[in-house]
Amino acid sequence: MPISSSYSARALVTGATGFIGRHLVRHLHTAGWEIAVLSRRQSQSTEAPTQSFLYTGQTAEVMRAVADFRPDTVFHLASLFLVQHTAEQIEPLISSNVLLGTQLLEAMRDAGIHSLVNAGTAWQNFAGDAYLPVNLYAATKQAFEDILLYYVETGGVRAVTLKLFDSYGPGDTRRKLLTLLLDSLRTGEPLAMSGGEQVLDLVHVDDICRAFLRAAELASDPSQPGNAIYSVSGGQRRTLRAVVETLGQVAGHSLPIVWGARSYREREVMLPWAGPTVPGWQPCISLENGLRSLLD
Amino acid sequence: MPISSSYSARALVTGATGFIGRHLVRHLHTAGWEIAVLSRRQSQSTEAPTQSFLYTGQTAEVMRAVADFRPDTVFHLASLFLVQHTAEQIEPLISSNVLLGTQLLEAMRDAGIHSLVNAGTAWQNFAGDAYLPVNLYAATKQAFEDILLYYVETGGVRAVTLKLFDSYGPGDTRRKLLTLLLDSLRTGEPLAMSGGEQVLDLVHVDDICRAFLRAAELASDPSQPGNAIYSVSGGQRRTLRAVVETLGQVAGHSLPIVWGARSYREREVMLPWAGPTVPGWQPCISLENGLRSLLD
Repeated sequence: MPISSSYSARALVTGATGFIGRHLVRHLHTAGWEIAVLSRRQSQSTEAPTQSFLYTGQTAEVMRAVADFRPDTVFHLASLFLVQHTAEQIEPLISSNVLLGTQLLEAMRDAGIHSLVNAGTAWQNFAGDAYLPVNLYAATKQAFEDILLYYVETGGVRAVTLKLFDSYGPGDTRRKLLTLLLDSLRTGEPLAMSGGEQVLDLVHVDDICRAFLRAAELASDPSQPGNAIYSVSGGQRRTLRAVVETLGQVAGHSLPIVWGARSYREREVMLPWAGPTVPGWQPCISLENGLRSLLD
Repeated sequence: MPISSSYSARALVTGATGFIGRHLVRHLHTAGWEIAVLSRRQSQSTEAPTQSFLYTGQTAEVMRAVADFRPDTVFHLASLFLVQHTAEQIEPLISSNVLLGTQLLEAMRDAGIHSLVNAGTAWQNFAGDAYLPVNLYAATKQAFEDILLYYVETGGVRAVTLKLFDSYGPGDTRRKLLTLLLDSLRTGEPLAMSGGEQVLDLVHVDDICRAFLRAAELASDPSQPGNAIYSVSGGQRRTLRAVVETLGQVAGHSLPIVWGARSYREREVMLPWAGPTVPGWQPCISLENGLRSLLD
C-alpha cells in the first residue's frame, strides 16, 4: 500500500500508451489506484499492473469495458495529435478525437459512472478566451467538448477538462521541440530554427500527472462545477530563445541553433492562451530542474 | 431558362434525398442552378436533372466529387436526425453529422471552393443564445460548427449556417407531428398527446428553401460575415394546442386529440430559441395557407 492521503479509486485510462498516459498510469499506481486501460493495442505497455480492454472502434467494446471494470473515474487521454493534417487523416482524426470520447460518455451514462477527466489542448484558444482553433486537431478537441456538454447536462456526467500546453519529461519519444534540442546538444549538429520569439509554456509531465489526479478529485466532488475547464500551465513562460538559453546554461555549453533559418509555422502560437488554473494544484518542477533531470 | 433575377450557379447538395433536400433541389433547378448530389444511394431520387456522386464514407469520394463538379456553393443538408439515440447509433451519428461535413470542408479547401450553406438546428440552443443541446443530434451539429470555424479561419471557406425549426410541407414522409395530426384528421382515430403547451415554430419547406437560396447569395458575398449563423423561423409561433386548433379550422372539423394523455418528452423544448434571421429573407407562407395546401 502506498502511503498517500489523496483520493484513490478505480481508473479507466484511454491513451495509456502515449507519453502522458504512460506517466499517468505510473502516478495512479503510486497513488493506490486500480487501473484498467482501453487501448487499440493488446500489448502491456505500462510498468504498472493494469487490466486491459481492447478497442477496435466499436461502441460495444467501450460499453463492455466501462460496465465490466466500473471505474470511479475515466481519464480520457487518447487522441490523434497532428500539428498539420492531410486529407487521409480526416477520418482517423474524427474517430480518435470525437467518436471514441462519445462512446466513452455513452458507456458512462449507461453504467452510471460519473467522473470524467478529459485532456484538451490550449490550441483550442489561438487568440484569447473565445474558441479559435490553431489546427484541425484542436477543432476536433473542441467538437468533443460540445458533445461532452450534452452528457453533462443529461447523462449525470461530471467532467474536468484540462487544457494542456507543451509537455516534456523522461521517456519522451515524440519528435517535439525538446527532443530536437537535446539531439542537437548531444550531437553538436546545427539546428535550423524559426526566429525563436514565440513564447512557450513547457510543463513537466509529473506536474501534468498531478494535475490529472487533482482533476479526478474535483470531478468527484459534487460541490465543484459539473463541467469545468482548466489550463495546466507550467507557470514559467519563456520565449523559445530563452528556453534554449536555459538549456545551454543547465548543460554547461550553448546549443548550435541557427536562428531564423526557418520561417514560423502557419498559425504559430506566439503567446499561448492562459485560462483559469486547476484549483488546489500548482506546478512544482522549475524548468531548470526539469531540464537538468532530462540531461542526467 | 427559368425567369429569375436571383443568383444561380453550380450547387453540390448533400442530403438531397431527405425531405428538405428534395425540395431544395427542385427550387435550385427552378432558379437555374446546375446541380450535383452527393449521396449514399445511387438512385436518382429527385425530379430535377442532377449529376450524382456516390458516398460510402471515404474522404477520397468527397474530394473527387468536389474537384470534378467544382460547385460554386455546397449545400450541406445531410444528417442523421434522431430525437433520441441508442448506443448503436453513436457511430452513424458522428459519421453523418461530423465526419461527412469535415470531409466536405477539406475537399472545398483543397479545390478552392469557398461557399458553404450548412443546415443546423435550433435544438443547439435549448435555453437561450448560449450553446446547450437538446439531444445528441444537436450536439453533433454544434461539434461540426466548431470544425467549420477552423476551415473558415484557415481554408478560405465562407459559411452560412441556417438553424432550422420544425419543417412541414408536401411529400413529407417523416413520422413527425403534422403527419400524425393529418393521419388523425383523416382516420378520426383519437391521438394521445402531451399537454400541448409547447410553442412550435412551424416553417413551410418552400420558405426554408428560399432561405437556403438567400444563404447562398450571402455566402458568396464578400461584404457579408465569413461565418454567419441565422435562424429560419416561420414567424408565427403558436402552442401545439393552437396549431391543432388552426388545423381544425382549416379542415372544417376538430381533431380527436386526447390532451395530456402522454407526458412531455425529456428535454421538451417549451419555447424555441430565436436568433437573428436571414438578412433579406422572410417567410411568405402563413400557417393557415400552408396547412390548407397540405389538405388539398
